[in-house]
Amino acid sequence: MPDGERYTVGVDFGTLSGRAVVVRVRDGEELASAVHEYRHGVIEERLPGSDAPLPPDWALQHPEDWRDVLREAVPAAVAASGVDPRAVIGVATDFTACTVLPTLADGTPLSRTPLGGRPHAWPKLWKHHAAQPQADRINALAHERGEKWIGRYGGKISAEWQFAKALQVLEEDPEVYAACVRWIEAADWIVWQLTGRESRNACTAGYKGIHQDGAYPSEEYLGALNPQFADFARTRLEFPLSPLGSRVGSLTEEAAAWTGLRPGIAVAAGNVDAHVTAAAAQAVENGRLLAIMGTSSCHVVNSSVLAEIPGVCGVVNGGIVEGAYGYEAGQSAVGDIFAWVLRQGVPREYQEEADARGEDLHALLTRKAADQPVGAHGLVALDWLNGNRSVLVDHHLSGVVVGLTLATRPEDVYRAMLEATAFGTRVIVETLEDGGVPVHEFVVAGGLAKNELLMQIYADVLRRPVSLAASAQGPALGSAIHAAVAAGAHPDVRTATAAMGRLRRDVFVPDAGRADAYDALFAEYRLLHDRFADGDQLHRLRKLRDTALAGG
Amino acid sequence: MPDGERYTVGVDFGTLSGRAVVVRVRDGEELASAVHEYRHGVIEERLPGSDAPLPPDWALQHPEDWRDVLREAVPAAVAASGVDPRAVIGVATDFTACTVLPTLADGTPLSRTPLGGRPHAWPKLWKHHAAQPQADRINALAHERGEKWIGRYGGKISAEWQFAKALQVLEEDPEVYAACVRWIEAADWIVWQLTGRESRNACTAGYKGIHQDGAYPSEEYLGALNPQFADFARTRLEFPLSPLGSRVGSLTEEAAAWTGLRPGIAVAAGNVDAHVTAAAAQAVENGRLLAIMGTSSCHVVNSSVLAEIPGVCGVVNGGIVEGAYGYEAGQSAVGDIFAWVLRQGVPREYQEEADARGEDLHALLTRKAADQPVGAHGLVALDWLNGNRSVLVDHHLSGVVVGLTLATRPEDVYRAMLEATAFGTRVIVETLEDGGVPVHEFVVAGGLAKNELLMQIYADVLRRPVSLAASAQGPALGSAIHAAVAAGAHPDVRTATAAMGRLRRDVFVPDAGRADAYDALFAEYRLLHDRFADGDQLHRLRKLRDTALAGG
Repeated sequence: MPDGERYTVGVDFGTLSGRAVVVRVRDGEELASAVHEYRHGVIEERLPGSDAPLPPDWALQHPEDWRDVLREAVPAAVAASGVDPRAVIGVATDFTACTVLPTLADGTPLSRTPLGGRPHAWPKLWKHHAAQPQADRINALAHERGEKWIGRYGGKISAEWQFAKALQVLEEDPEVYAACVRWIEAADWIVWQLTGRESRNACTAGYKGIHQDGAYPSEEYLGALNPQFADFARTRLEFPLSPLGSRVGSLTEEAAAWTGLRPGIAVAAGNVDAHVTAAAAQAVENGRLLAIMGTSSCHVVNSSVLAEIPGVCGVVNGGIVEGAYGYEAGQSAVGDIFAWVLRQGVPREYQEEADARGEDLHALLTRKAADQPVGAHGLVALDWLNGNRSVLVDHHLSGVVVGLTLATRPEDVYRAMLEATAFGTRVIVETLEDGGVPVHEFVVAGGLAKNELLMQIYADVLRRPVSLAASAQGPALGSAIHAAVAAGAHPDVRTATAAMGRLRRDVFVPDAGRADAYDALFAEYRLLHDRFADGDQLHRLRKLRDTALAGG
Repeated sequence: MPDGERYTVGVDFGTLSGRAVVVRVRDGEELASAVHEYRHGVIEERLPGSDAPLPPDWALQHPEDWRDVLREAVPAAVAASGVDPRAVIGVATDFTACTVLPTLADGTPLSRTPLGGRPHAWPKLWKHHAAQPQADRINALAHERGEKWIGRYGGKISAEWQFAKALQVLEEDPEVYAACVRWIEAADWIVWQLTGRESRNACTAGYKGIHQDGAYPSEEYLGALNPQFADFARTRLEFPLSPLGSRVGSLTEEAAAWTGLRPGIAVAAGNVDAHVTAAAAQAVENGRLLAIMGTSSCHVVNSSVLAEIPGVCGVVNGGIVEGAYGYEAGQSAVGDIFAWVLRQGVPREYQEEADARGEDLHALLTRKAADQPVGAHGLVALDWLNGNRSVLVDHHLSGVVVGLTLATRPEDVYRAMLEATAFGTRVIVETLEDGGVPVHEFVVAGGLAKNELLMQIYADVLRRPVSLAASAQGPALGSAIHAAVAAGAHPDVRTATAAMGRLRRDVFVPDAGRADAYDALFAEYRLLHDRFADGDQLHRLRKLRDTALAGG
């Protein structure tokens, strides 16, 4: 180690690609990063090499794409950094979740065995939504039996999570289920590839695996769902949990050959992309809520209080950082809604104006919307164009716009949608606080953090300063921080975050006048929210749509 | 009269222009028409030759523009028709309403006197909306005193009508009010110009002048509004009413010189553009509802039953045709809403597609929307982008769209708006029927009649055949029919309509499957309608808008 500096590598596995970043342990300086796009992307139509179409709502991935990130992105990032690979003391990973797969006892994915021609042998990506019937039964039975863990999930287990997906495998392809020795999060599977040893991290076990107070759901409960499912947790999940930031093993010779790193260096417990970003953004102290804002938004916040809050996706002890209760909530569409407005198009003269100025439509509408006084468009909208994750937990809701007149312009609708997502966030923040979880500060990471109009609207609507994660590589930096802890360079995640995380405090502060005006508009949002929350009308409209599209 | 044929001239005075048509009395054949655009159009900013700005919501017209139609359009139409002017046996007119003006005893408009520098001396166009405070008092007092005529207007006198506008003159410019000897509808004033004699037609007196059961509102009532207003009706309105189609005088030498017609020919009682169209469209029999559909829609229907129906603008004995109770209702925006959707723009690739095919955006969106199964867009909208005339009578309501998803496309919103206006019409039709006024058939006149997708949607939503007025000059042809009656060529309007009107029966018939699907969507519209009808939230949003625009 010529210069005495030490480094770690963080690897973030996203939906379409994986990214590696090389970070200096002393101060979190990011030296270089590299991206590898998955060759198979999201498998939704048919298995590779097969003509048979997959059913609707399926979404799979290819585990070899993930291993390719270790082979391609990691060495590329290290090479670009100019760092001597011998100075890299640890590696950590984070993953989309719940992305989960069936494996043999040694971690071999069933999709890489002779069962590989069967769709259920493949890893199910987080957005595989075909297990809704199983999720419905899981929830109904949990409430019927009064299972105490159901309150930790806002009263609702998602169809995206481990149990619903596993039950779907059992009931739709019992042979694959029988061959499945381990049912494991991709977050833990990738660590297995690095260390040669199984591990289970506290974060996904808690948020996606219904692991609460030291246990999975009981055999009685699981057997009541399906007699063949009774031993599922005991046989296929059970394993000692690893705290976040802990060292779960050492880099194998094989993985060292893939990555170009030294064998034997520390490998940290797996983690989830959203949650690990809290370390990158110094958002680990209690009450500092981190919003990762992109196509959708995910919110994580720590608290000293354990509370069961209706509509909040989950609370997990040590789920974000050891020694605190980590809460997770989210909004199913944010940037996706703004992109939807742009997709509707603009008047021809707007398009010509944008072309003449070399702007994109986002810049054009932002400029036209930015100077309006609060409330001047006369609109209020519900940001449910992709359903509502928190606090209504209903994917079949849809969007509403109220207050349209013949004078309403595209920039008015655009601004109303920006505001609607801020109001949706305010509902989540107020629900957390009403439930006993204080929120002092709002920290934003993710692609939307650079939208200044949006950030100012959030500050005004929330009446809280908005701070920004300073790194553009939130999750990968967060993983590198966890790697530094696993390698012993920092004593714990909090200390490591203070040294290596990056936060620009109070970049946007609320304006009192605008905040007052937004209070009045938010009251209208809240009223509309509560009017449509039962889904009564919105579910019927969706059913009419589905019936019409199915040919009556 | 070389060929033995006889002809009449109908003249339709619209908002921006007047149109004359020459029609054969025997069969209603339209030989030619001519249009004259008003030189001053709608006067909203300042009086001609003045720098002083008019207050907001004002809308005036110049009476000389109207006389120019007699001088320009009538001779041009006769010349274009090739008809010998000596073969023209009568003339009749129709006008926008309530367009109303103060005059001297001889009919001279006050705007043509030394008072002409004062805005209140000028004719107030139908859409002058500055008398709302007066209308509010008129309504409050009528309900307080239990005036029985208020029920004939659905419980609400409009700010557009004669009394509100006159009371505004009295209270804002008492000198103009004092100089006003006659307060007269432009519909009657133009007849005065043709005949040299005052007359008052049954239609405007009933619908706009609160003339019911042979009387105007009482002196007690008017005096309670304002002591100076007590004698208003007696001194400035009172005059024997002329039935529609009656001969109220003969063409003067002066008017003959303007028009090129023979002096002494019959001149019919004045009429309103919407109502006179019923004759052109053979929509005078009871239960055949005529919708004049353009930027907004007006509905007129006859019945043998006198009923007071909440939210229906007016019922007038002989208001459309002698011997029946004429009902009027309306929608404040229809074509204006579709134009609004187009004004929002379309995606660039849509624009390019339209350009490549030489289509306008209306044709493009119609093509894309036309083939959807009913309900496939998953949307329901409230067509209140310009308020709601019937049956809520609330200009401060606004539009709502429900059911938006990330998959919603511009053509979906477009179709939802077409449907919303059809649902709004269905509410009116059902309100009439619930009130005891049957509606058997739906007849459409006006510019939107050529929108085939829209017409089919109306047939399906209303579960009634849609017939079309065959003439593109609905009002002017209707006036020509009234002229033929006034000239004695036909014994009454019903007979004349049968001979001279033009109706294409049942051009669109409901499809049972689509009608069933629309029943389900209409139930959602109705629910939404009733949820927002109280204006509670929509009025607050409008007030927030107005406050914001006024600078807080």
